[in-house]
Amino acid sequence: MSHHRVPDPGRRKIGSSTPGSQGSDLAADRAPYDGTPPDGDRLEPLGRQETKASYTYTGLRGWRRWRALRPGRGMYHDVMRRLPYYWSDISDAWTYRTVASTIRMYFVNLLPAIAYTLDMYRRTGEFFGINEALFSSALAAMVFSVLGAQPLTIVGVTGLISLFNFTIYDIISIYDVSIYPQFMAWTGIWAAIFHWLVAILNGCDYMRYVTDFSSESFGMYVGIIYLIKGVEELVNEFDEYGSTAGFLACMIAMLYFASVYAVEKLGSGKIWKAGFRGMLADYSYVVQFCTVFWVGFSHIPGRLKSTHISRVPVTKAFLPTQPRSWLIDFWNLDVKWIFVAMPFGFLVMLLFYYDHNVSSITAQARQFPLKKPGGFHWDFFLLGCTTFVAGILGLPLPNGLVPQAPVHTDSLTVYKTGLRIIPTAEGEGTEIRRPVVRAEAVVEQRVTHFLMGLALIGTMTGPLLVVLHTMPAAVFAGVFFVVGWGSIESNGILQKFIYLQAEERFIQWDEPLLQVRKRKIWLYIAIQFSAVAACVAISHTLAAIGFPVLITLLIPFRILVIPRWFALHELQVLDDFTATNKIVLASLGGKPALPEHSTEEEWGLERRRSERRFGVPRQRAGSIHR
Amino acid sequence: MSHHRVPDPGRRKIGSSTPGSQGSDLAADRAPYDGTPPDGDRLEPLGRQETKASYTYTGLRGWRRWRALRPGRGMYHDVMRRLPYYWSDISDAWTYRTVASTIRMYFVNLLPAIAYTLDMYRRTGEFFGINEALFSSALAAMVFSVLGAQPLTIVGVTGLISLFNFTIYDIISIYDVSIYPQFMAWTGIWAAIFHWLVAILNGCDYMRYVTDFSSESFGMYVGIIYLIKGVEELVNEFDEYGSTAGFLACMIAMLYFASVYAVEKLGSGKIWKAGFRGMLADYSYVVQFCTVFWVGFSHIPGRLKSTHISRVPVTKAFLPTQPRSWLIDFWNLDVKWIFVAMPFGFLVMLLFYYDHNVSSITAQARQFPLKKPGGFHWDFFLLGCTTFVAGILGLPLPNGLVPQAPVHTDSLTVYKTGLRIIPTAEGEGTEIRRPVVRAEAVVEQRVTHFLMGLALIGTMTGPLLVVLHTMPAAVFAGVFFVVGWGSIESNGILQKFIYLQAEERFIQWDEPLLQVRKRKIWLYIAIQFSAVAACVAISHTLAAIGFPVLITLLIPFRILVIPRWFALHELQVLDDFTATNKIVLASLGGKPALPEHSTEEEWGLERRRSERRFGVPRQRAGSIHR
Repeated sequence: MSHHRVPDPGRRKIGSSTPGSQGSDLAADRAPYDGTPPDGDRLEPLGRQETKASYTYTGLRGWRRWRALRPGRGMYHDVMRRLPYYWSDISDAWTYRTVASTIRMYFVNLLPAIAYTLDMYRRTGEFFGINEALFSSALAAMVFSVLGAQPLTIVGVTGLISLFNFTIYDIISIYDVSIYPQFMAWTGIWAAIFHWLVAILNGCDYMRYVTDFSSESFGMYVGIIYLIKGVEELVNEFDEYGSTAGFLACMIAMLYFASVYAVEKLGSGKIWKAGFRGMLADYSYVVQFCTVFWVGFSHIPGRLKSTHISRVPVTKAFLPTQPRSWLIDFWNLDVKWIFVAMPFGFLVMLLFYYDHNVSSITAQARQFPLKKPGGFHWDFFLLGCTTFVAGILGLPLPNGLVPQAPVHTDSLTVYKTGLRIIPTAEGEGTEIRRPVVRAEAVVEQRVTHFLMGLALIGTMTGPLLVVLHTMPAAVFAGVFFVVGWGSIESNGILQKFIYLQAEERFIQWDEPLLQVRKRKIWLYIAIQFSAVAACVAISHTLAAIGFPVLITLLIPFRILVIPRWFALHELQVLDDFTATNKIVLASLGGKPALPEHSTEEEWGLERRRSERRFGVPRQRAGSIHR
Repeated sequence: MSHHRVPDPGRRKIGSSTPGSQGSDLAADRAPYDGTPPDGDRLEPLGRQETKASYTYTGLRGWRRWRALRPGRGMYHDVMRRLPYYWSDISDAWTYRTVASTIRMYFVNLLPAIAYTLDMYRRTGEFFGINEALFSSALAAMVFSVLGAQPLTIVGVTGLISLFNFTIYDIISIYDVSIYPQFMAWTGIWAAIFHWLVAILNGCDYMRYVTDFSSESFGMYVGIIYLIKGVEELVNEFDEYGSTAGFLACMIAMLYFASVYAVEKLGSGKIWKAGFRGMLADYSYVVQFCTVFWVGFSHIPGRLKSTHISRVPVTKAFLPTQPRSWLIDFWNLDVKWIFVAMPFGFLVMLLFYYDHNVSSITAQARQFPLKKPGGFHWDFFLLGCTTFVAGILGLPLPNGLVPQAPVHTDSLTVYKTGLRIIPTAEGEGTEIRRPVVRAEAVVEQRVTHFLMGLALIGTMTGPLLVVLHTMPAAVFAGVFFVVGWGSIESNGILQKFIYLQAEERFIQWDEPLLQVRKRKIWLYIAIQFSAVAACVAISHTLAAIGFPVLITLLIPFRILVIPRWFALHELQVLDDFTATNKIVLASLGGKPALPEHSTEEEWGLERRRSERRFGVPRQRAGSIHR
């Protein structure tokens, strides 16, 4: 396989956006993305050759191979690559999937955002409240659904930005807490500037070097932080409302977690028809079932109702939580502080660089049969814009949602549960009848993201804020547990750890991990776990804002140090490139040209084997991988 | 296969109790029981022909075939059959299994007994307390371990006798609550008399007609009642100690259940070595882990400790809970009331007839490779004796513990986890590596039962009562959930219901249930469930004491009515005789001679297939079957 693609007019296939190819017959008539825009002839004037050519630096010579010397090249290619699909992004949306996805994503986006905000609200002197979080989510949703190169990547308020915001609050309050709004605005402005620089100088290309080594560590870190946040939420309940409310809150959080988990298990089992199971998967976490039930539960008259537990604090519709205008008077900040804000802005950019791009990559993972290309440079530029606006309006900065982005793609995927019959040697007529889930097609469009944004704006109105206020904080502790545990349960670190505990004779003969000595696997997950532990540890100090540095350092560490300790064939089993989908690599400048990198099929043996056997797993609410 | 066995001196095999066949080499040198006493020659004077002959009425003519006309015949054979093994019952006990089993059974017996007693204590005007329950359990353990024909059958205080006692209390308190002790004593005396009559007139023989149809219904009923009891325990916490204690109690009960369940799942998984997994199974519910942990948890200083939740109420060591002497003055009861007590005594006998014998049958289920015979008639006679003593001492009447008796046998079974490799047609070198659990041998002895009884007596002393008092009632609500759910989860009714939900194409080709039309399966479990629902319903009224009638009516219903609605081949899949082990049938007069009954192998196809494939499941704490 060659690492770059040369223009080849003869290889063009007819794309998907021809009229009539809508809805259920999505699967058949679309060829995978191969650099050819749909209806290529019409688009010729827009630079067909340029777009068709995979954006790459491989094989270039002289100054042309220096990314920094070719500003805007990545962004230009991103736009050219995606623009031809813009109309189909709207016309393809007329399916039931869009409805299910919009409803699911509204909850999957909103509930964690509120959960993080409860935490942030308390710990930033009530500066960032529900209205700010809703505004920020809605802003991001509108911008990225309309202008994003990859509208599948859901953008919103994450737990890490909440961690960032209150750590900066802690730092600022050592000096002068009154400048916090302006300081945050400048942090946002600086972050925006760094975003734009990175996007223009084609910096996103380096994301293709990200492997599961670091993204598993990141996922584990996020999961642990969320579990801790859930516990903190419950502790707060005890502190603020006393023991009775505290124990009730613990009970609700545990039952919420258990019920969401149980419904998700049912949705991935073998009982009931595949269609009904799919509905459970669509609406489980979605909480049409669980959230509504447990919110209602907390209002049952009697002991439950009379135990006053904390509920979501809301203020007036469309107004900031604090008595201020939306625009922060960022010009009223001492010049000294403006420059102090610069490194903070850089750290925010570093966090978003990793977090947003990884969420975008996972939203376009290889398991999803995507046909339309994405664009990392352009989206990162856009993220700079939303960062700027959110910064000067005093909103929590939105970025790509790591656990939720792949859920969006999942919610748009048409799955088909096939049946694989494998005769066995156990006896006359015995066989394994195994369900194999195949992802048939993805309804790639920008309407769901847009509708979700509209729904978020609707949530900012008075009546719906009242509804939000009925929700007990305990449910959000449960949300933390769901999202956090989802990120940990399916994590490669834990999976390898469980493998190491297994009794050897029961391990399947063709298990790829058997090719690696056990102590090597131990070493591998021990390094990952040390990184996680270090991140978790500093997250509870003022140095918390430094954790993006630690995470991004794992990328060069993996490229430069790890190969000295592990043989190539070991890494091929243990690790995998996070960005493996062709449409992703097209925007990132092609496959990474590592010395040890040969063909794609030789990596991620573990996952490939599982997918070959059992098909594609559905994306759980909280899990990053698999 | 013939339905009866004629004496055949030539078929004798050398038994197991020859000196030297102790401990680990149990499995190899012992032939299954076939009616031959060990070391047959020495025992000849004791009636070798009689003993060797399977006790049966089949083939007899004239007055000899009437059971009632041959009083004591069953008991005589029981004693003759078991007596030769008495010495080996002690000498075989010198293995580690005995230690593990004693500790496990102590907890498995004690914790539910206390749980039921908490309930009974409140609802019988504090007449039956912890001391009575301990005394009753210890009495039963000493009597049955020393004198029982089948010392594997654990006898103690059940939840159903608690239901009985407080329902009678409710009835009596309508008239004159002061006669409750004497009335209960007379109920016990009458019950004892009926026990003796049934035992002497060989009534236990009819237990061989019991099929899973009724015993599954019984198991489901018991499970539901226990779950309800658990909830009632928590409700009581709210009523007596307020909301804070209530919510904390809910939390502890839920976490207790979750942790016991999780440890049990780990114990039956594939990780860690088989030996360590076995240890988890030995000590999980046993609660060395979980109970101790959650009891400790409730004492953590701070909010947990300061929330006063209810704990086990204890009184002075060795004294009755009420200020009375142990012996009830049963002679001070109006003659009128003595005769009123008679039907109550009969109902107790009916309950014990079903409950005790089924628990004995499950303790000797076919899955356990037992070598020593049991004796139903003799044990039922003994049960009459303990009923009499417990009655006049004002103790809750002990009988066979349905969920716990098979746990005892399980804890004494030497399991070996084998590996079955089944090549599959999936590709080069692919295969299934499946753990298959085989029960190699059972350490059949009476020492564990005896030691457990001693431990129970020890628990009646002052210092250990203080330890008991540290245990929160919430943990016992958790015990109810564990035992109750264990009885429901593995129940055939639920399993068939889940089968009916399954998507058809994933059902294995050789699944026996496929031979039965779905609506027939629906009908079958609907009948079972109606019986369960009826029992549960009357359990909450004064008619609760009538439920043994309902349960025992299921036996003739199954024999007389069910065959009209179901074809023979359908029943062979859906149903199975509960007593299938040869050593059991030897005491019950041989296989039941139903018109549709042909050979043993044609029944219980469902279970046979599962055991052939996956081996024998370990007995969970609460489950009756599988």
